[in-house]
Amino acid sequence: MTMDYDDRYFHGKPQNSFHKAMNIPDVVVFPRSQEEVSKIVKSCNEHKVPIVPYGGATSIEGHTLSPNGGICIDMTQMKNIKSLNLEDMDVVVEPGIGWMELNEHLEPYGLFFPLDPGPGATIGGMCATRCSGSLAVRYGTMRDNVINLKVVLANGDIVKTGSRARKSAAGYDLTRLMIGSEGTLGVITEVTLRLQKIPQYSVVAMCNFPTIKDAADVAIATMMSGIQVSRVELMDEVQVRAINLANGKNLPEVPTLMFEFIGTEAYAREQTLIVQKIASEHNGSDFVFAEDSEAKKELWKIRKEALWACFAMKPNFEAMITDVCVPLSRLAELISTSKQELDSSSLVCTVIAHAGDGNFHTVILFEPDQEEQRKEGERLNHFMVHTALAMEGTCTGEHGVGTGKMKYLEKELGIENLMAMKRIKDALDPNGIMNPGKLIPPHVCL
Amino acid sequence: MTMDYDDRYFHGKPQNSFHKAMNIPDVVVFPRSQEEVSKIVKSCNEHKVPIVPYGGATSIEGHTLSPNGGICIDMTQMKNIKSLNLEDMDVVVEPGIGWMELNEHLEPYGLFFPLDPGPGATIGGMCATRCSGSLAVRYGTMRDNVINLKVVLANGDIVKTGSRARKSAAGYDLTRLMIGSEGTLGVITEVTLRLQKIPQYSVVAMCNFPTIKDAADVAIATMMSGIQVSRVELMDEVQVRAINLANGKNLPEVPTLMFEFIGTEAYAREQTLIVQKIASEHNGSDFVFAEDSEAKKELWKIRKEALWACFAMKPNFEAMITDVCVPLSRLAELISTSKQELDSSSLVCTVIAHAGDGNFHTVILFEPDQEEQRKEGERLNHFMVHTALAMEGTCTGEHGVGTGKMKYLEKELGIENLMAMKRIKDALDPNGIMNPGKLIPPHVCL
Repeated sequence: MTMDYDDRYFHGKPQNSFHKAMNIPDVVVFPRSQEEVSKIVKSCNEHKVPIVPYGGATSIEGHTLSPNGGICIDMTQMKNIKSLNLEDMDVVVEPGIGWMELNEHLEPYGLFFPLDPGPGATIGGMCATRCSGSLAVRYGTMRDNVINLKVVLANGDIVKTGSRARKSAAGYDLTRLMIGSEGTLGVITEVTLRLQKIPQYSVVAMCNFPTIKDAADVAIATMMSGIQVSRVELMDEVQVRAINLANGKNLPEVPTLMFEFIGTEAYAREQTLIVQKIASEHNGSDFVFAEDSEAKKELWKIRKEALWACFAMKPNFEAMITDVCVPLSRLAELISTSKQELDSSSLVCTVIAHAGDGNFHTVILFEPDQEEQRKEGERLNHFMVHTALAMEGTCTGEHGVGTGKMKYLEKELGIENLMAMKRIKDALDPNGIMNPGKLIPPHVCL
Repeated sequence: MTMDYDDRYFHGKPQNSFHKAMNIPDVVVFPRSQEEVSKIVKSCNEHKVPIVPYGGATSIEGHTLSPNGGICIDMTQMKNIKSLNLEDMDVVVEPGIGWMELNEHLEPYGLFFPLDPGPGATIGGMCATRCSGSLAVRYGTMRDNVINLKVVLANGDIVKTGSRARKSAAGYDLTRLMIGSEGTLGVITEVTLRLQKIPQYSVVAMCNFPTIKDAADVAIATMMSGIQVSRVELMDEVQVRAINLANGKNLPEVPTLMFEFIGTEAYAREQTLIVQKIASEHNGSDFVFAEDSEAKKELWKIRKEALWACFAMKPNFEAMITDVCVPLSRLAELISTSKQELDSSSLVCTVIAHAGDGNFHTVILFEPDQEEQRKEGERLNHFMVHTALAMEGTCTGEHGVGTGKMKYLEKELGIENLMAMKRIKDALDPNGIMNPGKLIPPHVCL
């Protein structure tokens, strides 16, 4: 436990300057067991003290802010692997373990956990925000890859949300209710994850297109062909330019798709050839693919370092990362419409999409001390959210609500939905101590 | 609307005589729109009249019983396909449509909905019971294949649970909360389903084993190999005997695995050969496979008609179908332990397992007018549930809780979990009108 100002400031500060910290926690605690978490929460509940669960703090919608002060529960001391069940292909972990750390542990067994958010994200935080990433097109999101949780509720109860069976029809799906609840219903203290076999073989491919629409159409056609890509990532010409600048590359600065195909050697190659054909039918050019491990790494590096490439292009700028998701058929139109707005803005904006899921990010670069730029970034973000909502999409594909997206929920889901959420929130957290000020918009009252 | 006794009796009768009907509904209504459902439910809520949503009524744990009388809402008139979005690979349907009817509609488009419960099941009922079936090993359960729902809550509110995007992190996962809630939280009035491409090619294979353990080990080894079977079904020697008797077949009466492999022609064949090798390493024999459409149909017919084969073996008997699910590594032991008990029973019992998910059914045949036989069936069912629970499994893999499995939930999930469920139930249905007497055990009080 600490009351040191620097520690409290560190835990209260926003990840991005477009979410302002109006306060910092009064105390930061570092529990080492679920029993300790239970005692802390129970005591906070009795004294109506707000709590904010805290993991890798890589989320970017203000989830870990402490607008009402209170107690920040830093879960990163709880990072044990409790049991690895090879034949069940599952693992039981404490929430503070990072996904990269977990995968290092799993690699010798030929297994991995197939979600790849930003480095530093912890499994608990990934559950809390219903995270996904580039592999979600193949393996699903956090929703699909958690077998059960242990969660401490506001009253201190330690709830096991399900058995360790891979599927069950035994009662309400409290596992899924907790996933994506962003610490507003409970503190996650244990997670059982479903694991996957590390693919025997993989191929990485890249292809250029004259327009974003052509690239998006290839992503749709690939999904409709029944091919199970493991990744299909779209970058616009601005993003490719950033990569060229940052890495001294000379890639054609045009809309670009990157693919990963997995399976047996023969199958990964077969998929590659099928998609090459699809690409060529939609004005794709320069289709290249790599099978050699170093060449694949080199190729994926391009995509992986996209964000850093943006910063290299504009040092001392900050990034506002947007995150909308629409039904697949609308992605091309969404990106095209958005790009008109982005290209005519004074800010530099790049586009990266998890195209197989209809999930689309932009990186909007702005100078943090320039209020006008921040406002312009927010205008662009609003524009894209409203465009996505008009297409039956969502204001957040994978980053969560936090404080940043609350204002869009009513338009997306309707007030009846928000009232139902609020009823559930009040039922499980009658004193409103669990991560207050996040997820449920403040205007929703029963 | 009807108050006719025969109609009410029909809607109140149990699917199986091991769940007794103590009452029948007072009225049966047949709404034709979600607005009508909303009006009915709102009015019932005002007058505290119980309601029981009713679909195909194929569920077997007493979900559609009316222990408190009240209003049975038969949803089968609401069976429209509201929109089929080919490029999004999704479809919006009313809940009363059957899954087989839906698939007939989708076939010309090369798409299908990949869950295959008993014939007659409706999409709404499949959502309500979190159903799965033999293809769940490849495509997941109802949990994984629903994009959003519209649900009428007890207060008459029509709630849209999510957008039409394939993934979203926008708030509590009300979609998943409703799936598996068995009509106790709301009446499902619209369902958006994720669709799959009909596989280009498939191979069906069958293999015999000296012991159940060998067969189960092959299922585990197949899953661990990273191969994505679309089906892996296990039958014991008694089930094969039933099939021989019913169909005049001459299959070896030993534990048998049936597989389906899908993908491109080359990949389906490659998977077949890999699994053939795995089977041969675990004492498998007589590995046969079919690629020709008629031959495949003939082979799957064996598995599909397993239940009817049981009835053919014992005409005028009823079937108590059990449904437990355990972590994959425990399946062999669970089945072996169970079979000792089943084989020494006076009743005829067959074993069928969705082996890739650790989900295991038995068909226990009994004469409905012989109380002793019914009790013996229940004893066997109890035995298997408790054995599964001791293995960190679940009392129901896919059939749901209904009235039949309530008594096991506390042992499986703990009282803290049930208290949380009860809090949610009371928050959304304060008058307790929604399918009362199901899912939440009566002893759970706040």
